[in-house]
Amino acid sequence: MTPREPRLTELALIRALRERARQAPGVRVGIGDDCAVLEAPGGGLLLATTDLLIEDVHFRRRYAEPADIGWKALAVNVSDIASMGGRPRWALIALACPASTTMDEVEAFYEGIHALGDEHDVSVVGGDTSASPAGWVVNITLLGEATGAPILRSGARVGDMIAVTGDLGRSAAGLAVLERREAPARVPAEALAVVTAAHLRPRPRVKEGRWLAAAGGVTAMIDLSDGLATDLRHVAEESRAAARVDLGRLPIGAATRDVAVATKHDAVGWATGGGEDYELLLTCEPSAFERLRSGLGSATGTTLTAIGAMEPGAGGVTFVDADGHAVAVGPGFEHFASGARRE
Amino acid sequence: MTPREPRLTELALIRALRERARQAPGVRVGIGDDCAVLEAPGGGLLLATTDLLIEDVHFRRRYAEPADIGWKALAVNVSDIASMGGRPRWALIALACPASTTMDEVEAFYEGIHALGDEHDVSVVGGDTSASPAGWVVNITLLGEATGAPILRSGARVGDMIAVTGDLGRSAAGLAVLERREAPARVPAEALAVVTAAHLRPRPRVKEGRWLAAAGGVTAMIDLSDGLATDLRHVAEESRAAARVDLGRLPIGAATRDVAVATKHDAVGWATGGGEDYELLLTCEPSAFERLRSGLGSATGTTLTAIGAMEPGAGGVTFVDADGHAVAVGPGFEHFASGARRE
Repeated sequence: MTPREPRLTELALIRALRERARQAPGVRVGIGDDCAVLEAPGGGLLLATTDLLIEDVHFRRRYAEPADIGWKALAVNVSDIASMGGRPRWALIALACPASTTMDEVEAFYEGIHALGDEHDVSVVGGDTSASPAGWVVNITLLGEATGAPILRSGARVGDMIAVTGDLGRSAAGLAVLERREAPARVPAEALAVVTAAHLRPRPRVKEGRWLAAAGGVTAMIDLSDGLATDLRHVAEESRAAARVDLGRLPIGAATRDVAVATKHDAVGWATGGGEDYELLLTCEPSAFERLRSGLGSATGTTLTAIGAMEPGAGGVTFVDADGHAVAVGPGFEHFASGARRE
Repeated sequence: MTPREPRLTELALIRALRERARQAPGVRVGIGDDCAVLEAPGGGLLLATTDLLIEDVHFRRRYAEPADIGWKALAVNVSDIASMGGRPRWALIALACPASTTMDEVEAFYEGIHALGDEHDVSVVGGDTSASPAGWVVNITLLGEATGAPILRSGARVGDMIAVTGDLGRSAAGLAVLERREAPARVPAEALAVVTAAHLRPRPRVKEGRWLAAAGGVTAMIDLSDGLATDLRHVAEESRAAARVDLGRLPIGAATRDVAVATKHDAVGWATGGGEDYELLLTCEPSAFERLRSGLGSATGTTLTAIGAMEPGAGGVTFVDADGHAVAVGPGFEHFASGARRE
């Protein structure tokens, strides 16, 4: 879980890959956003994203059932499509399991995929299966379509408000509970269920993403996979601006706060750096915020909370306390093993 | 490398997945062919395929350099698009490496991808990178477009001729050389280079696939990834017919025969069961064969060899010797660890 900054050679490699993708035919957006945006044969816009999940890097079999693994592997991809305001359509599933895996476990894995996929009209259209010499390996590629102009990371402007859907830190709270050998004392069972479900079975914000993209006034959007600090830095860097977040305005649920107290963790740290919340982070014109907040609530029941503003600068993110003083927070979630990075 | 027949419950799961995909909106062809064929936003036909390659299941680091791994991981997907007669376009690359991996190795991996990708106008448009607790894991999803009606596995008719491009067994010969601690004696260096290159850097038959699909008269096509016996069985099953192959007509190169003699292997066994040749296997109207053979030769320089015919039956493949007697051959290549299966 030690955050790691990409090395210089790594940044150079990513820059070279981005430059190649930028020049490629039919590529509206290549590397550097949640999805690639491609000019499909026939002229429509296709969204494409891929995520690789590896046992003991992204999940542990001790508490993640096969159905949870399937659900989450699809959910992280669905969330990428949601963050562009798109409609998820077709999934390709690659699965490698140890020889000891039973067919019941494989079936349960697909049941988890279908349980989430059916909610979002996602069809499994292909795949690959293999033996794995070590643990479970899952790769899902998800294709979707852009129903309007996709909302990118790069559209934020100085003066825009920064907002998030739902609440933050729940998944990190769930992970803290799951990683313990026994449940923390003095936390209600419902609170434990809320946070562990948030970690094991995240609910990507597809209808929220589509509503927000269509509503007008949203200038940039990203899903919160690596944590607010890291993901907002992506928005700031891609938009060539800086971001300021008021820590006191971060939406943190009661269950997350209860678990933080019981396990002696910092709920605000989970909210800024925990990652895997799969909420949407967006920027919008200040004049649009109230319309977006109330409209999203009416249309989907999901809250939208203003947490800061875009400022002049070159890609930094500053977190400030109630007195307006800058506070240092960790850069975000990097999974169990050092070195995981999601593009 | 022990071939493994799917268990009954596994077949039931695949059947259920296929049935779901068949009913899904926008899915022209789902699970059960080399690529999914999807109705892209805008109305064109999109091809999509994914392949997962795992160290010590699909390759060994002892002889596969990072650039070889990148090349081959892309090649196996490009070959799937080729087998539908399609045009490969965009790749999504997921890579997980052990912590000991150097940036030079990661760069070399991408150089291998670009070396093949540039030959076929394939652009890398997205990806994911991660730590791996064990060895290298590579997943590539490749998107392409159908330039005409995709050629499926299911179109073979009783009486059709069966033919293959290039020659067979080279990759298996290369693997046999690479798996040895020292090069076999009395085999010319050029022969060793031919077979090891076939294994490490296969050349997918894209222009051949497009030419054959456009030429008319080809009724079914598949790429030879799992070996002639297995892949032809797929064609026979999907086409609800049987296949008969004359062993004496299998095209086997001099280098493959030389290596087989020197290593005391059976070149015909490599040709029928070795796998990973990434040649195209097709069926065609008998009256079209000579036109296809000479036309393909003129257009691409690649040979097309008739090896048998489709017969009435329910999915079986029979190999016959010069006297017309049935000969038992292994069902095909299943990688180092039992249980690998490519859909």
